[in-house]
Parts: sequence; structure tokens; C-alpha cells
Amino acid sequence: MSSLTNPKVALIQTLDVAPVINPRVLSLDEGPWRSATLTLAAQLAATAVQRDQQGGSAQAEKQLFRDSGLLRLSIPRQLGGAGSSWPEIYRIVRYLAAVDSSLAHLFAFHHLQLATIQLFANAQQQDYWLRLTLDQNWFWGNATNGRDTHLQLVPQDEHYQLLGSKSFCSGALGSDALVVSVPRTFGSQERVFLVIPAQRDGLLINDDWDGFGQRQTDSGTVHFEGVYVDAADLLEYGLNSPRASLRTCVSQLILVQIYLGNAAGALSGALDYINERARSWPGSTAERPTEDALIQLRLGGLWARLDAATLLAERAAGRLQQLLDQHSPTPEERGELATWIAEAKLLSARVALDITSEVFETMGARATSSRFGFDRFWRNVRVHTLHDPLDHKQKDIGRWLLTGEHPVPSNYS
Amino acid sequence: MSSLTNPKVALIQTLDVAPVINPRVLSLDEGPWRSATLTLAAQLAATAVQRDQQGGSAQAEKQLFRDSGLLRLSIPRQLGGAGSSWPEIYRIVRYLAAVDSSLAHLFAFHHLQLATIQLFANAQQQDYWLRLTLDQNWFWGNATNGRDTHLQLVPQDEHYQLLGSKSFCSGALGSDALVVSVPRTFGSQERVFLVIPAQRDGLLINDDWDGFGQRQTDSGTVHFEGVYVDAADLLEYGLNSPRASLRTCVSQLILVQIYLGNAAGALSGALDYINERARSWPGSTAERPTEDALIQLRLGGLWARLDAATLLAERAAGRLQQLLDQHSPTPEERGELATWIAEAKLLSARVALDITSEVFETMGARATSSRFGFDRFWRNVRVHTLHDPLDHKQKDIGRWLLTGEHPVPSNYS
Amino acid sequence: MSSLTNPKVALIQTLDVAPVINPRVLSLDEGPWRSATLTLAAQLAATAVQRDQQGGSAQAEKQLFRDSGLLRLSIPRQLGGAGSSWPEIYRIVRYLAAVDSSLAHLFAFHHLQLATIQLFANAQQQDYWLRLTLDQNWFWGNATNGRDTHLQLVPQDEHYQLLGSKSFCSGALGSDALVVSVPRTFGSQERVFLVIPAQRDGLLINDDWDGFGQRQTDSGTVHFEGVYVDAADLLEYGLNSPRASLRTCVSQLILVQIYLGNAAGALSGALDYINERARSWPGSTAERPTEDALIQLRLGGLWARLDAATLLAERAAGRLQQLLDQHSPTPEERGELATWIAEAKLLSARVALDITSEVFETMGARATSSRFGFDRFWRNVRVHTLHDPLDHKQKDIGRWLLTGEHPVPSNYS
Amino acid sequence: MSSLTNPKVALIQTLDVAPVINPRVLSLDEGPWRSATLTLAAQLAATAVQRDQQGGSAQAEKQLFRDSGLLRLSIPRQLGGAGSSWPEIYRIVRYLAAVDSSLAHLFAFHHLQLATIQLFANAQQQDYWLRLTLDQNWFWGNATNGRDTHLQLVPQDEHYQLLGSKSFCSGALGSDALVVSVPRTFGSQERVFLVIPAQRDGLLINDDWDGFGQRQTDSGTVHFEGVYVDAADLLEYGLNSPRASLRTCVSQLILVQIYLGNAAGALSGALDYINERARSWPGSTAERPTEDALIQLRLGGLWARLDAATLLAERAAGRLQQLLDQHSPTPEERGELATWIAEAKLLSARVALDITSEVFETMGARATSSRFGFDRFWRNVRVHTLHDPLDHKQKDIGRWLLTGEHPVPSNYS
Repeated sequence: MSSLTNPKVALIQTLDVAPVINPRVLSLDEGPWRSATLTLAAQLAATAVQRDQQGGSAQAEKQLFRDSGLLRLSIPRQLGGAGSSWPEIYRIVRYLAAVDSSLAHLFAFHHLQLATIQLFANAQQQDYWLRLTLDQNWFWGNATNGRDTHLQLVPQDEHYQLLGSKSFCSGALGSDALVVSVPRTFGSQERVFLVIPAQRDGLLINDDWDGFGQRQTDSGTVHFEGVYVDAADLLEYGLNSPRASLRTCVSQLILVQIYLGNAAGALSGALDYINERARSWPGSTAERPTEDALIQLRLGGLWARLDAATLLAERAAGRLQQLLDQHSPTPEERGELATWIAEAKLLSARVALDITSEVFETMGARATSSRFGFDRFWRNVRVHTLHDPLDHKQKDIGRWLLTGEHPVPSNYS
Repeated sequence: MSSLTNPKVALIQTLDVAPVINPRVLSLDEGPWRSATLTLAAQLAATAVQRDQQGGSAQAEKQLFRDSGLLRLSIPRQLGGAGSSWPEIYRIVRYLAAVDSSLAHLFAFHHLQLATIQLFANAQQQDYWLRLTLDQNWFWGNATNGRDTHLQLVPQDEHYQLLGSKSFCSGALGSDALVVSVPRTFGSQERVFLVIPAQRDGLLINDDWDGFGQRQTDSGTVHFEGVYVDAADLLEYGLNSPRASLRTCVSQLILVQIYLGNAAGALSGALDYINERARSWPGSTAERPTEDALIQLRLGGLWARLDAATLLAERAAGRLQQLLDQHSPTPEERGELATWIAEAKLLSARVALDITSEVFETMGARATSSRFGFDRFWRNVRVHTLHDPLDHKQKDIGRWLLTGEHPVPSNYS
Repeated sequence: MSSLTNPKVALIQTLDVAPVINPRVLSLDEGPWRSATLTLAAQLAATAVQRDQQGGSAQAEKQLFRDSGLLRLSIPRQLGGAGSSWPEIYRIVRYLAAVDSSLAHLFAFHHLQLATIQLFANAQQQDYWLRLTLDQNWFWGNATNGRDTHLQLVPQDEHYQLLGSKSFCSGALGSDALVVSVPRTFGSQERVFLVIPAQRDGLLINDDWDGFGQRQTDSGTVHFEGVYVDAADLLEYGLNSPRASLRTCVSQLILVQIYLGNAAGALSGALDYINERARSWPGSTAERPTEDALIQLRLGGLWARLDAATLLAERAAGRLQQLLDQHSPTPEERGELATWIAEAKLLSARVALDITSEVFETMGARATSSRFGFDRFWRNVRVHTLHDPLDHKQKDIGRWLLTGEHPVPSNYS
Repeated sequence: MSSLTNPKVALIQTLDVAPVINPRVLSLDEGPWRSATLTLAAQLAATAVQRDQQGGSAQAEKQLFRDSGLLRLSIPRQLGGAGSSWPEIYRIVRYLAAVDSSLAHLFAFHHLQLATIQLFANAQQQDYWLRLTLDQNWFWGNATNGRDTHLQLVPQDEHYQLLGSKSFCSGALGSDALVVSVPRTFGSQERVFLVIPAQRDGLLINDDWDGFGQRQTDSGTVHFEGVYVDAADLLEYGLNSPRASLRTCVSQLILVQIYLGNAAGALSGALDYINERARSWPGSTAERPTEDALIQLRLGGLWARLDAATLLAERAAGRLQQLLDQHSPTPEERGELATWIAEAKLLSARVALDITSEVFETMGARATSSRFGFDRFWRNVRVHTLHDPLDHKQKDIGRWLLTGEHPVPSNYS
């Protein structure tokens, strides 16, 4: 990305922002987006606890993302984007999730929609929508929940109408455009993606998300009251190919980053708290809690698991990028990647659930004051790890081990 | 208790209230207080989710307790009380905690203060304060946090003044009287209990509790700006005796009931949700989630642990009552009880943490809506299990096993 | 039992034998069989490690049981037996299993066969076989593996012939009589029990058990080459009644004692080893390993779980005895007991697996010398906990919690 | 390595040996030593169960290693060795450990002694001992147990005498030469390495290893009855440098491969068993155990953890090789590596303990027959993971996270 095209970003990048996350827990490699990410993280951190308590929509913070230049990461260089690889994008998502898991999710799902366009749209469509995204600095939302059957695509003359509703539409509220998924025909199992600008008539985006975690993801309901869809806006290129099925891989690995990020945020907060505020318990093996054997033991066990889960995530991300860079990955290659992602997801979710709950035992009772907001990490992870059941991922891994069969590509695997 | 003395209670008891908790998870034996408890649980349940979200003080609900007659449970029959045993009281606390963990805590701590009077006060003091409690239907609060060193008892002529502050004063706000603990003399390790009515001059009870769980326990700060204490209000009888040291046992077993109650509340809510709302996941082994092998497996493992922890709690409660009924338990008897309580606390805390987090995996993503309030169980348990470190309890058990030495009586063991 | 009838036992009971198991871990209540049990335990302990290494049959040790008088425990007083309750018998099994899990198993299964007679035989059969057992001081074995389909009961004139084989026939080798189970007719699901003396023609009891644990249980194969069975030796009384189905409950709770016993044996050995031989590791929090925080922590956690599993086992044993004492327990009562047993089995198995493996971490590398034989506890538990799958027990518990349905009575539940 | 120099190896490499380990669990990359490793694995597998039962010394199998050409892997190319990297060697160790953990350990410790020479010897010494090793096809043993204080190095004229003993001398018996560690002077904390050929006078190598696992590692006691040591045979180059301290890193990562290998061996055996022999349990979710949800769930969870631990091991091995290839790694670099190794060791040990015990629950009771030898994996891992305490490794990781301090270089970290 040329900094000339966006003077504001250039300005931010010159600032020397101190990392808000303990660098032993999570750090960002040197790279063109490090400074922008650290800056954005610091901006989000300033209000994250308060915004988590308020819930609701974070449109001002979405503007910070627009200003950061990070919305163009996944757009190819030849179209004017940053052409970042998914491993790079994932690390940025993970870092931001350590500070503000809701906004990190919206940011990552913005890029998921751009990936959807790159996987399912023909060249002309890609050119059109991606350039428009750059020009207008769009922030994308989605209405693609795969288990929701209340939306229909009704053919009408040369075009279509969308009728019905979708739930869990993260990022729809306040977005500039939406990717929507819908059965190809009434009652069909085949699902098609399409794109629509968010201001289109008949689109009713509700502010009704009330999850106890990921509170600012605007994952509410969208009503489609006869929304116009041009035939040219259906993304049908490469449908059912192994390559297009990588969309689910992109998506599932986003979830993984959210878990890893929250775990890192909770650990980082605990380290700071222990160093700055905690007292040793009577009967402890040490005067300072940092030297306490039981605290060291607990954190050592959690860290090893987090580090291992991160390696699984990085391995999967690297392979995903390789397969995206190929013209046609084989089903076997796609299957192995899916199993690797299942492993990364399972272990990152489990360790994130444990870390975000157990860190309190290293800090003590006073760390439960709402002004620290340390509980938000568990709430975020608990909500987000229910996206699709972890046990089923675990079973998929076992089935592969027993039989050699990888998960069948679907909305969730 | 004769229902004649309290017509309101009598009325309530005649109502046939349906249990709000799934009876497979938790039920109340037939007994004189079953109906009152079920009624109170139903009353609290009606607003528990909403009040958890609001936080703040629940004075109206404290009045429901006053009306229920349950505040007299721990007062001996010969003084006009109900003379209930602690195992009975604990089961009522546990049941109420399944619905409203904050209020159950305040209720249990009310009885802890009454136990304190019975363990540390001489006959005359007991007679005075307990009869007053009955007459006025008092709800007691406390200012007895043992790690807090900011309060002093300053001798002045024939009486004393309290100067300073205490934190974590659960139930102080809106209480009728307080038990206070304070060093006997400046800087001394010896701690003395005393009682004061809540309306006494110089007592400033703040509404500043902001924990993310147990939100309505009013566990804020109390300031003592020269509060008058009569010499006769110091409770010094039996100080340092094994019997008096049972106060910590009474207190620790209260915590255990809170954990067990929250676990039961979370499980009960999950069972209802699964039966009424949940859908099977694609790829499940059964059409109905109640028949799903993975859901059964998870709940079966959690239940066995909860049931086992409950048996530990019941064993300890039974022995506690035996020791309370004796004139002078031996240090060995008191020590064994402390180890039994440590075991009950450790396992009930651990399983409660696991249940309140894992039940979501049996319900799915839609169960995270704030309108169900299912996250409050984890928040309550997470906050309350930090009262004193679980790892230290676990270490105490191991030390006993290795050396035969029971925990030294203290504010926490 | 009157000691007059068995002078040898009387003699043994007068000895004052020191317990071979650390009394903090496991102890025996005062009672008529305490001394005989402690003596037998000491006798078995003297050679247990060596015999575990050798494997094979322990006929000399079975004679020690015959001499101890303990073989008559489960025979009713009115027939001349000891009339012990199952909770009493279970505690003795558990104690002996802490020393010699194989022999404890044979001993317990001897009593299981006597219980089978009491549950399935008519009064006349009971009188005959139980008195014969007392007179001849019989040690019973079994051929009742429920999943083995290679045995047939062939009608022939007025009697029957047994043809085929059975595997996992614990205790058959060197036994005086056998309980056998077999399909009522060829291919039938209905199973009938029958009894035969062990010296009967055509009975070929192989010494072919080669499990890596429970090495002296003689759980080999028995061949039936046309073994004569009198019609009067079929036990068909009360077949399919809830009361008769308690046989499985008796049997499953035996397994539980074996797990608890092995766990206790491993813990007891570790405590002795740590106190007498272990050194602190450099960097430990204490000079003596008994004061080491990490060792205390590990043992504290294991102990609490073992103690809790023991309470589950005791609760189930008490209820079992109540139901045995009734004429006709209801299906609901029988079902609740089965669920309680499932819980006891699940938790005792899991904690026994953990204890028998983790104790090594409290002792260090030198404790792996074969001369201590500490690995036999894990091997015993690992083998024995596969009797029927733990996961299915766990699932049964979950199903009950979700639906209220208890396990259907079977050979395993 | 040119196959010309070792015709026997060349011959073996041309054979097309089928892998004895399920390739989904563990496979070897194509490479110059793949065929030799697979062949050796097949040879060892043929007798591994039987030899584990017998225990004792496996000199015939050590000859198979000599014949395989694999003893030269760690010797630099410029001296005529294979110049393999440690990541390559570790993968071969891991593979062999899946079949025969004892021999894999001796093989790896052979290379550890060669690494010791390369880290602590001057150029002349290296040249001498490594060329001799190649010429004579030596198999090295060790007497370097760091906690054993019963050996002294007594100066005598121009040379030294070794007096005393060492325990846990894996591979000493039947070895051609030994690396020995001993305090530099009497009572000193400073330890020096030295080398001696095994046939030297006064060296008494006992066949007294009796661990219940790793049974053929010959880890017995060595007595030194005035063994001559030439001053030139002390390895004192680079003593106390960060680079030399990498010896412990090489050693600890060997342990990791043994754990991973045993875990893989147990899993591979279980997969074969389930596919070929196991039956579904009544009440299972599927007719074939490979399709059983509970079996899939268990194996899926174990596999994800094993895969993650393997990634930690690979990361550490790669970094180790980088640091070995540098002239002088910094203390910080060495420290980070030590922490990475601690993580790999902790998680690989924990998952190996779990896998080697839990696989039985996927196979059922008949898998405990000694003829399968499936228990040897747990016994090997249980013994070997006590080399130094896992809890201390876990604590080290936590201390680093809390304070930034890496473990101090020592014999164990």
C-alpha cells in the first residue's frame, strides 16, 4: 500500500505506539501494518471495558478501522489493495482480539466477505466490488448464517427478490455492503452467495443482538422485505469446487484467532495485575506472587497449551494460503487442511476457555471488580466458541484418524 | 416455629408452589420450611435475571426474606427461634442459590452472624441479641473481612471507638445490625468480634460493590468514623477455643452451598433449555438433543462430580453440627472437620466452575442471549470461589495426607 | 460367627496385626472381621509384589482366605454364615484390594456367586448350596461373562448338557464350585444361571489368563465338553424381577471396591515412600518433600477426588443393602440405585486411573524399580476398568439427567 | 552418506519395507535414512513385545543398529559421518520409539554422547573420538547422571583415577565407550565430562536395571574401581558457555521424542486393533467401533493434543539446530530455547501419559492380553517422564511468563 493514497494512515504509522499487550504473551512482527495495528489496538483499548459494559453498536470504532487502512489488507495488490496473506491478516486479528474481541471479529468478517467475493465471484464481479470497496473504504457485513432457513430468493423477471430474515448477522448494522447466503431455490440444499449494498430498499437491519459476550458485534437479525437482487450480483463462479469450499476454512480460522486473542488478552491483563497489584496469600511459598510456586505452575501449564494451540493455528494458516494460491487444490488437500483447522479450533477454544476463567485464581478476589473488565474475555470466548459445536470438531478429528475420512466441506467444516 | 406467630408465613406455607429448579438436579426434603423456601425461590426467580443485570442493592428482596420467616432458622428454640440444624439451613441456602446466588449469600451470612454470636457471646449477650433479632425480624450484615487491616478499635474511657474501614462487607447495606471484626489492640494479630446496630452514628455504608458476579451482595466498603462500641458488645467468650473456631467452618461451608447452588441452577436451566428449545446439530447421533450421545456424555460426567461434591458437603455439614452440639470438640476433631470442608470446597468449586461454563456446549449458541441470564451462574461462581484461594485449600489437604497435620484454625480454614 | 466353630480364625483374630495400609488413606472400622482382614492383608502383602510379577494361579493364597473365615461373610446367619451386610463386605474387599487386587477380586466374586444363589435360587436350592459351602469351606468361581456366546445348554432327557466355552472366568481355576450363565435355549437372549461343582466331568478349566493386570485372577477360559447339569441346578427363581436384577448391582459395586482399593494402595505406598526415601528436587519450595507445595497440591487434589468417590460408593452400598432387604424393590428404586452405582463407578475408576499413574510424580524416578511393584496398581485398575466401558456408564447418567430414564437392567447395568 | 562405504546399509535401503506404524499417526519423510529406519523398525517390532517382557540387555538389537548405518548420523560430514541435523535425528528416534522405546533411547543417547564431544571437546579430541567411532562402528553409553554424587575424579601424577559409582547409566552395558561426568574436584559443583573406552580396567558395568518400563535400556549402575583417565580425555573446551550448555537441550529434546514415539506407538496399535478386532458395545451409536461417536471423540481429543505437542517439539528442534550452527548463541537465545523445550516436554509427556492409558478405552478388555504388549507404552512413558519432574518444568515456564527469566542452564534445563 502506498501511504500517499491515505495520508492519515501514513501519519499513524509514524507514531511510536507502545504495545498494550504484554509482549511475552503476544507480539507483532515487524511489517508494514505493525504500527497501524498497535495504534488501533491502543485506541480500542482506551474504551474497550466501558464499551463492553454498554454493549450496542460501535460505529465510531468502525470508523477507526476505516481510518487505519487495515480494511484493504485482503484486497489483491493488482486491484490496489495491500495483498496481505491470510497468516498476516490472522495475526492482526488475533492482536486486536486481545484488546477488543467484538471489533476484531467485525474486522475479520469484513475480510471474510472480501474472500468470499474472491472465491465465488467471476473476474468482472471481483473487479467491480473490490475496487468499489477500496474507493469507498467500505466496511462489509454479512447475512450468511448457514442454519437459518427463513430467507428465500424469489425469481422475478430478470432479477430476484430476497424475502425473509437471517439471524446472527455480525457486522450488518452500520456496514456499507453485505454478503448474503440463501438457498438457490426454495427448499434447496444448495446455497448461493450474493452481494448487496447496505442502503438498498427493503433491508431492515435490527439492533437486537443481546449475547452476553462479543457484545459489540451487532450480530442481530436482518429482515429482507423484498430486497432487489440483480442476477449479476449472484456469486456462482467455482461453486462446489474444493477451492471455493476454502471459504469455510478462512472463516473457521478467523474464529481461532478470536479465541487465541482473548486468551492472550486475559493472560496479559493477569500478568500486569499480578506484577502491579496482587499480594501473596498467607502460607504462600514466596513473598511476591510472581515467585509463588502455585501461581507459576498454573500459568506455566496454561501458557504451554496456548503456545501449542497457536502453532496449530499458524500451521493451518500457512497451508490455507498455499491452497488459496493454487488454482485447484485437491479434495484430499482441502480435507487435510480442514482437519488441521479442526485441531487448531478445538485446542485454541479449550485453552481459551480455561485461561479466561483460571487467570482469576492467580490474581485474587479484587480482580473481579467490574472496572477491570477481566470477565469479558471469558464471556467473549464462551459465546464465540458456540458458533458450531466443539465436540463435533473433536469427533471429526477422531473419525479421520480411525478411517482416513476428512470432514465433508460444509458451512462449518 | 409456630405459624401462629407469623400469619404471613403460615399463609405462604399453605400455597402449593411448583419448584423452579428441576427436581432431578436439586430438591428439598419435606420439612417445616420446604414450602416457604420454594415460595421464596419462586419469588426471587421472577426477577433474578433482570436484577443480576441491574446490579445494585436488593432491599425489596431482603424484605421477602424477612417475610418468609427464614431469618429465624438458626436461632435456638428456647429463645423462640426455629432451632434448625446447619445441614437444614445449608440445604435451604443451596436451593436459594440455584435461583439467586446473591440473596442466598446475604441470607446465609445473616445466619453466620447469628452463629458468631452463639459461638463468641456469653449467655447474656446471646439472649439479648438473638431475642432482639426475633422481635425486630432483623437481617444481619457483616464487616469481618480478615485480610483488611484498615480498622482500629480505640479504647476511650469505659467504651471504644471504631475508626477506619472494611471492604467486602457483604450485606452491610440495608442491614439492621452488623458483626464487626477488628484487632483487639492496635497492630495485634488477635481479632475480636463485636456487634453494633446499623443505624449507629458514624457508620457509613457505601454502595460501591462492583464485582462482575454476586452482583447484589452489597459487598462494598464500610467506613467507621468514630463509631461508639460499648464494652458489653465485644464478644469475647470462648475466644481461641476449638469450638469458637468453628465459626470459620460454618462460614466456609456456606461458600460451598453457594457453589453447589449455582451449579444446580445452571444445570437445571440447561435441562429445561435442551428439552424445550435446543435442536440437534447436523451429524448428531440422534434427532433429539436429549438423546445425543455427546450431550449425554458431557452432562453425565458433570453430574457425577456434582453429586459427589454434594456428598462431601453433606458429610461435613453433619459433622459440623455434631461438633457444634458438643461442649468442647478436640483440636483433632476440629481439624478433621476442616480438612473435610476443604475437600468439599475444592470439589464443589471446581465442578461448579466447569458446569457453569460447559452447560453452554449442551445448549448451543442461542443460549447466550442475555434474556436467559445463563452466564450469571459462572460469574457468581467465579467471583465467589476467589474468597480465599482454592489451591491453598488443595495444598492443605495434601499436607494433611502427607503429615497428618490439619489446617491451623484461621479466618479461612 | 462363633469363633468356636473355627479355632484357626479365632487364633488369628487374637493377633494384633499392624495395618499394612496407611490409616489416613484407608482403615477398617472395629468389627468382628477387622482382625482377620488385617491379618490376611499382612499375609498377602508379604508376597504380593513377587506374585504379581510371576502371575499364574495363587492357590496357596486362596487357602489363606479359606482359613480366614471370611468366605462365609455373605451367608445368612440362619444357615450358619456370618450374615454380613454388603457394605461390610465391600469395605473388606476394598482393604484387601489395596494390597492384592487379584485375590480381592476372587474373594469378592466368591461372594457374588453366593449372592447369585440367594437372588436366583429357591429356598431349597439356597439351603443346599449355602450349607454345602459352609461345610466344605468352598471357594466359588464363575463362568458368567455376559458377552460370550459360545456356550449352549442342551436339553437331554431329564437333564442338560453344557457344550462350548466361556472366557474371562475369574476364579474358576482351583475353585470348588462354579456359577455358570448360559442362554436358556439356543440363540435365546434370556440367560439362566446354574451351579455345578468344579470337579464335574467334562469341565476343562484353562490356566490361560494373560492380562497385564489383575494377573492372579485366573480369568481364563473354561471349556464345557458335555458337562452334566441337573434340572434342579438351574436357578430360575425370581428371574427377571427387579430384585434378581440386583445381582448386577452387587457385581458392579465389587468393581468399584477394586478401583478404590488399588487407588488406596498406590497412595499409601507413595506416602510411605515420600516419607522414608524421597529427596526434594533442586528448586523445590521445601527441604523435605512432605513440605513441598507441588507435591502437596497434587496429592491434595487426588485425595479429595478419592474421598468423594468413596462416599458415592458407600451411598450406593447402603442403598443396595436396603433393597436387598426388601421383598420387592420397585423398578424406580432399582433404577436409582443403578444410576448411583454408575456414578460411583465412573468417578472411582477415573480417580483410580489418575492416582495410580500420578503418584509417581510425587516419588520420583527411583520409585519405578520393579522391586517396589508400584506399577501394579495402575495395571490392575487399567485392566479392571475395562470390564464394561466407562463412557457408557457416563452416558447412562447423562441420559437419566436429561430424560429421567434409568439404565435398563442388564449384565452390565 | 555414500552407500558405497557401507554395503550392508545399501542393501537394506533397497528393500521396500512396509511401515509398521500407521502412517496417519507417524510417518517419515523421504530422505536418505528412511528406508534404513523403516527396516530397523520392522526388525525391532518383530520381537519388541517379547523383549519387553523378558527385560535384560538387548545386545543383538544393538548390533542391528550398528548394521543399519544410523550410528553415524550425528557425526559431521567432514569427518566421514552423515552430518544429519538434529531435527532429522529426532524424527528417526521418535519413529523407532514408537516400536521399541528402550532401543530408541539407547540410540538417541549414543548420539547425545557424540554431541557432548562436539560441544565440549577441542578440535583434536573431536577428530580422534569421532573418527574412532566411525572406524569401529562404536555404540556409545553414558555415566552422566547429574544428581548422583558418588563418583570422584582423583588426580594422580599426570593423569586421574575415577573412584565410586554412578546410577542410571543408560546404555553403558555392552557399549564400546562411555561419556562420564564427575565433579571437577572433590565436592565441587563444577562438573566435567570425560570419555573412556568401555573395556578399560576397573570399570564394572552392572546388569542391575529393574525399572518397570524402558526395560531394555540397561540403565544400571557402573562402578569405577580406580579407572585410569588420561588428562587429554577430559572435555573442557567451551565449558560454561551458552553453546556448551546446549547439551542439556539436546538431551531434553531426546526425552520428548521418546514420549511422542510411545504415544504414536500406542495410538497406532489401537487403530489397528479397533479396525481389525474390536466389537461395538451394546448401546453404541454405531455398528462398527470406527464409527462410534464416543470412540471418535476420545481419539480426536488425544490426537489434537499429540499433534500440537509435536509442533512444539519440531519448533524447538529447529531452533536448537540454528543455535548449534552458530558460534555463540546468546544467553537470551539459549534461554528462549530452554523454555520452548520445557513446553514441548510438558505437553508431550502429559499427552503421552494420557494416550498410553486411554487408548484401552477405545479397544476394550481383550486388548489387555499380554500378547499384545499394549501396556508397555504407558510403562515406558511413566518411567521416562520421571527423568526430572514435569511440575518443575511447568513452573519454569510460568516463572518466565511472570518475570521474563528463563531457566538457568543446568543438567536438567
